[in-house]
Amino acid sequence: MEEKVDLLKKANIYFDGRVTSRNYTNSEGVVKSLGIMLPGEYKFGTKAAEHMEIISGKLEVLFAGMESNWETFQGGSSFEVPANSSFEVKVEEITDYCCTYLNE
Amino acid sequence: MEEKVDLLKKANIYFDGRVTSRNYTNSEGVVKSLGIMLPGEYKFGTKAAEHMEIISGKLEVLFAGMESNWETFQGGSSFEVPANSSFEVKVEEITDYCCTYLNE
Repeated sequence: MEEKVDLLKKANIYFDGRVTSRNYTNSEGVVKSLGIMLPGEYKFGTKAAEHMEIISGKLEVLFAGMESNWETFQGGSSFEVPANSSFEVKVEEITDYCCTYLNE
Repeated sequence: MEEKVDLLKKANIYFDGRVTSRNYTNSEGVVKSLGIMLPGEYKFGTKAAEHMEIISGKLEVLFAGMESNWETFQGGSSFEVPANSSFEVKVEEITDYCCTYLNE
């Protein structure tokens, strides 16, 4: 449970609804979003660096500049993406995630 | 913005991810969920009565016992469903909604 957070009601909707998320700010002022990715292939860009916690599901991730070195992540694992970068994902199982936007 | 709410991180996932939602409890102790419905046809049952606020999107709703009297709802509108009832929806445009579980 994330306690005493400020939750933005309006959803973020990407890729025709196959990826959606909700932004919130926790009690320490950290901005996060809880999201769902349906099976499929997507590419995301980052402004701030991001910490991606996989709550449940399964996906492969290709970090920018890593040529074809796809890495698999499942529920309970996490990864980070630098600021002003990008990453591609191949979602194999519906993935529930929490993204934390990092201040650097 | 919904301020100082307690947000459950794990998503509710229905109909193979075509309907997903997040539960939270607001500062007055009212339980709500923010959800997304992708285009399609779904049937929902209610335990507690529900107030459904349509944040954006477009859907038709058939309330239990209303035979074929489908009603259209869009962003900015809302409807209520009694406790221990059901309703069917035909989602025409990705629908972002807020469901409030009513105490009766």
